Amino acid sequence: MQPGVPTIARLFGEIGRDFYARGWTLGTSGNFSTLVSRKPLTLAITASAISKGAIAVNDVVVIGPNATVVSARGPRGPRRKRSGRPSAEALLHVTVARVRHAGAVLHTHSIWGTILSNVHAGEGGLTIAGYEMLKGLEGVTTHEHAEWLPILENDQNMERLARQVEETLKRFPAAHAFLLRQHGLYTWGNDLAQARRHVEILEFLFEASGRLRTIAEPYAGGSHGTDKNPRTTANVGGRRIDHQLS
Amino acid sequence: MQPGVPTIARLFGEIGRDFYARGWTLGTSGNFSTLVSRKPLTLAITASAISKGAIAVNDVVVIGPNATVVSARGPRGPRRKRSGRPSAEALLHVTVARVRHAGAVLHTHSIWGTILSNVHAGEGGLTIAGYEMLKGLEGVTTHEHAEWLPILENDQNMERLARQVEETLKRFPAAHAFLLRQHGLYTWGNDLAQARRHVEILEFLFEASGRLRTIAEPYAGGSHGTDKNPRTTANVGGRRIDHQLS
Amino acid sequence: MQPGVPTIARLFGEIGRDFYARGWTLGTSGNFSTLVSRKPLTLAITASAISKGAIAVNDVVVIGPNATVVSARGPRGPRRKRSGRPSAEALLHVTVARVRHAGAVLHTHSIWGTILSNVHAGEGGLTIAGYEMLKGLEGVTTHEHAEWLPILENDQNMERLARQVEETLKRFPAAHAFLLRQHGLYTWGNDLAQARRHVEILEFLFEASGRLRTIAEPYAGGSHGTDKNPRTTANVGGRRIDHQLS
Amino acid sequence: MQPGVPTIARLFGEIGRDFYARGWTLGTSGNFSTLVSRKPLTLAITASAISKGAIAVNDVVVIGPNATVVSARGPRGPRRKRSGRPSAEALLHVTVARVRHAGAVLHTHSIWGTILSNVHAGEGGLTIAGYEMLKGLEGVTTHEHAEWLPILENDQNMERLARQVEETLKRFPAAHAFLLRQHGLYTWGNDLAQARRHVEILEFLFEASGRLRTIAEPYAGGSHGTDKNPRTTANVGGRRIDHQLS
Repeated sequence: MQPGVPTIARLFGEIGRDFYARGWTLGTSGNFSTLVSRKPLTLAITASAISKGAIAVNDVVVIGPNATVVSARGPRGPRRKRSGRPSAEALLHVTVARVRHAGAVLHTHSIWGTILSNVHAGEGGLTIAGYEMLKGLEGVTTHEHAEWLPILENDQNMERLARQVEETLKRFPAAHAFLLRQHGLYTWGNDLAQARRHVEILEFLFEASGRLRTIAEPYAGGSHGTDKNPRTTANVGGRRIDHQLS
Repeated sequence: MQPGVPTIARLFGEIGRDFYARGWTLGTSGNFSTLVSRKPLTLAITASAISKGAIAVNDVVVIGPNATVVSARGPRGPRRKRSGRPSAEALLHVTVARVRHAGAVLHTHSIWGTILSNVHAGEGGLTIAGYEMLKGLEGVTTHEHAEWLPILENDQNMERLARQVEETLKRFPAAHAFLLRQHGLYTWGNDLAQARRHVEILEFLFEASGRLRTIAEPYAGGSHGTDKNPRTTANVGGRRIDHQLS
Repeated sequence: MQPGVPTIARLFGEIGRDFYARGWTLGTSGNFSTLVSRKPLTLAITASAISKGAIAVNDVVVIGPNATVVSARGPRGPRRKRSGRPSAEALLHVTVARVRHAGAVLHTHSIWGTILSNVHAGEGGLTIAGYEMLKGLEGVTTHEHAEWLPILENDQNMERLARQVEETLKRFPAAHAFLLRQHGLYTWGNDLAQARRHVEILEFLFEASGRLRTIAEPYAGGSHGTDKNPRTTANVGGRRIDHQLS
Repeated sequence: MQPGVPTIARLFGEIGRDFYARGWTLGTSGNFSTLVSRKPLTLAITASAISKGAIAVNDVVVIGPNATVVSARGPRGPRRKRSGRPSAEALLHVTVARVRHAGAVLHTHSIWGTILSNVHAGEGGLTIAGYEMLKGLEGVTTHEHAEWLPILENDQNMERLARQVEETLKRFPAAHAFLLRQHGLYTWGNDLAQARRHVEILEFLFEASGRLRTIAEPYAGGSHGTDKNPRTTANVGGRRIDHQLS
C-alpha cells in the first residue's frame, strides 16, 4: 500500500531540508515525486514555486498520466493562497516514472551538476568511471563501471522536452540519471530512499569529477589524474541486486 | 496590514540564521529591510553592527524617507547598551525601496559575489545567461534570459553612493540586483520571501559562474563551457507573473 | 570493559551524523568499527548499505576474525527487512584492527581524499609534510613531520585487497592511514575518539593540500607554495604520547 | 566584573560549535582564551587536546602571566581523566593579551588561512586591501584600508615563538592578527564577541582572496581582478571607534 499525502509530505520535507541545506535546491528550485499508483499512473509531486527547505502538506499535489492535477489534499479555506499547481516539469517526472518503472523521481539544481552540464554539453553527455561510489547506483557491483550521463538541451516547451527525455531514456537503458543543460539533474529509484541515494552518489561524483579539473597542471602529475577504468559497461538489467556500497 | 516589529524581527532572524550559516553575512556584515508604510516611506531595518546569526527585537529600527530613525521598538531600560542605530547603508535601502517600489531589500556579503564584483569591475557589470535558475528572478519565464548585474564602485559617502544607486536603477530598469565592488549584493522583492529567493538564486548563479572559471583549460573542452544563450533580454515589466522555478 | 552494542550504535550515530553532514559518507558510503574483544578478535561494525546519517541499533553487527557475523543484536521481528549483513569491506577492518592493534577503524569517502587518491596513484602514495595539523596524528609531536599515505589500487576481491592492506601496513609501520584509489580513506586509533580525530585531521590535510594546487601559477609566487619541511620522518612507535594539538 | 569559568565555558562552547561546524577547529585544533584579570594577568583558556565541538566546564583552565595553571575549576573526582593541562600555545595567548591589551584571543586552523600562510610565507606576510569587510576589524572605517597580516614561521619551541610573536606585534602595531605558517590564525579583541567577529572577517577575507586566485587566467580579464586600493594604511589607534560594518 502506498503512503498517504501527509506521509509523503513528511518524507519530501526530510529530503528537502537536507538538499536545501546542501545548496542543491536553492530558491524554490528542484522537485520531488513518488508513485501513488501504477495503473493509472499517479504521482504525488511537490507544487510549483515552493521552498524545498520547508515543505508542508499543502505543497504536495497528486497528478495523473498527463501531469494534470487529479486531486490535492484536504479542504481549501479562503486563506489558502496557493492552489497547489504542479510544477511545470511534472510531465518529465511522469515520463521517467512510466519509461523507467520508477517509484520515485528527484530533480535537483546543484553547482557542480550545472557546471558539468555546461562543460560537456557539446559531447551530449559525460562518462564517470572507476569510482567506488558508482556502486551506490542500483545494480552496479564494481568500481570498474563507466556511467554515461546524457545531457539534454534545456527547453521551456515541456511536451517537446518530455519527448526528448523519453527518447534519451530508451536510447540509454542503463543510465541512472540525465542532466538538463545549465539546469539540473534528474534521477530516480524504486522508492524515495533509493532515489535520494542516487542524488547523493551523483552529486558526490559531479563534485569529485569537477574539482579534479580545478587542479593546476604542474600539480596533477603527468596523467593529470584522469579517471581510471573507463572501459567497462554497467550490467544493469531487470535483475534486482541489492546495492552494497558502504 | 504590515506586520509589527516583533514579527519582522522574527522573519529577519530566520533569514539571518540561514544566511549566516551559509557564510553570506559573516562578522556583522549585511543588512535586511522591509516596508512598514509606503506613504510616508517607512522601513524596518536591521541595526548597525549586529550579528545576523542571532537577530533580536531590539536589533530592528524603523526609519523614514531620509534613513533617519522614526522610532525603535519598546522601552529601553538602562541595561540596553545599543541604541538601535540604523546601518550606515540604510539610505541605500530607502533608495531601492523608493525607486523599485520594493517591499523588502536584502544586502549580503558572499565569497563568490565579492570575487565576481572584483573580476568584472572594469566592465561595470556582468551578464549571467542561459541558466534555468534565472527563472527564480521575478518576471523571468525562460532560461533564455540574460541578466545584467551592474557593479558600482564602493564608496563610504552614502549620499553620493545612494545617488549612484538611484541612477543605476533608473538606467537598468530590468535589473533585479546590483553589486558593490569588493563589498556585496543588493537585491529586493515585493516581500521578504521574494527578496530572499532572489538572494538564493543570485548566490547560486555567482557560485556556478565563478567556479566554472576555476576549471583548468584542457579539461573544459574547446569552448571552455561558456554561458549559452546570452542573446535574449528579460521582459520584466509592471505585469506580475508568478515565478515558476521548481 | 567494552561498551555494548546499543552504546556503540549511539557513538557510531554521533560520528555518522557529523561525517554525513560534512559530505564524507554520502549515499550509504563509509563504514565504522570498534573492538568488542581482542581475543578472539571481535568487532562491532556498521551493516552494509545503510545511511550513515541515521544509524540505528539494528544497523550494527558483531563480527569475528574472518569478518563473518558472530551475532547481531536483539530480536528480529517480521518487520525487520535488513538482516544486518556486515559490509563487504569488513575484512579490511579486521585486518587493520589485527595488524595495527587498533581499537577502532573508520572508513570515509570524501571529495578531496578521492581526488588525491587519483592524482597520486601513479606514485603509490603521497606525502603531507610541514603542517601543524599533523600533530593531531597520534605520536606526532612536531609539524616537522612527513606523513606518507600509501595509495592502494581499488579491488572488489576482498581477500586479495585485505592481503594488500596487510602488506602495506607492515611495509609502512609509521603510517596512520591509507587511501584506496578513487575509493576512500581508512584510518584507525586506540578508540573511536582517536580514530575520529584522525579522520578530521586527514580530511583537513587533504583539502588544504588539494586546494593549494587549485591556485593559478602567477598568484602563487615563485615557489607555488609547496609543502615545507618534507625532510623529517615520524617517530611513531609503541610508546604512547598524548597528542597535543590545539 | 569578569564572568566565572562556567559562563566562560558556555561562551567558548558556543564559539566552538560554530567554528567546528565551519571546519575552522577540526581534530582538537585551535584554542580560545579570555581575560580573567589584568593585574596579575590571568586568562581562562581551553585545555589542550579537546574537541572544540563540545567544550565542557572541565575543559577550561585558568593560567597566569607565565602560562602556567593558576587554578582549574571545581572538584576533580576519580572519574575525571583529563587534568586540564593548558594548551602548549597558552604562552602565545598570554603574550597577545599582554602586548595588545586584549580581552580575548582566538586561534583557528582554517583551510584558506593555512594555504595563504604557505603561499605568502616567503614575503613574511600578505596584504588584504579594498574590501568592505575590512570594516569589521576594530578601528577600520573604510574599505580603503590595507591590512598587513604578518606570517611567522611555525616553531615547537614556545618560548622562542612567543618572543617572535611579541616582536611582530610591536613591529606592526596596526595589525589585527597574524598567521603562523602552515599552522593557523591568531586574532584578538576587547572581548570574545569582538575577537569572534575578527575571526569571521579574516576567514572571509582569506577565502575570498584565496579563491580569487583559483580563477583561470582567460576568465579573469586583463587585470585578473587584483585587489583594489592597496595604497591606504589603517588608522588604528587607542581611540575607540565602534565598528560599523553591516
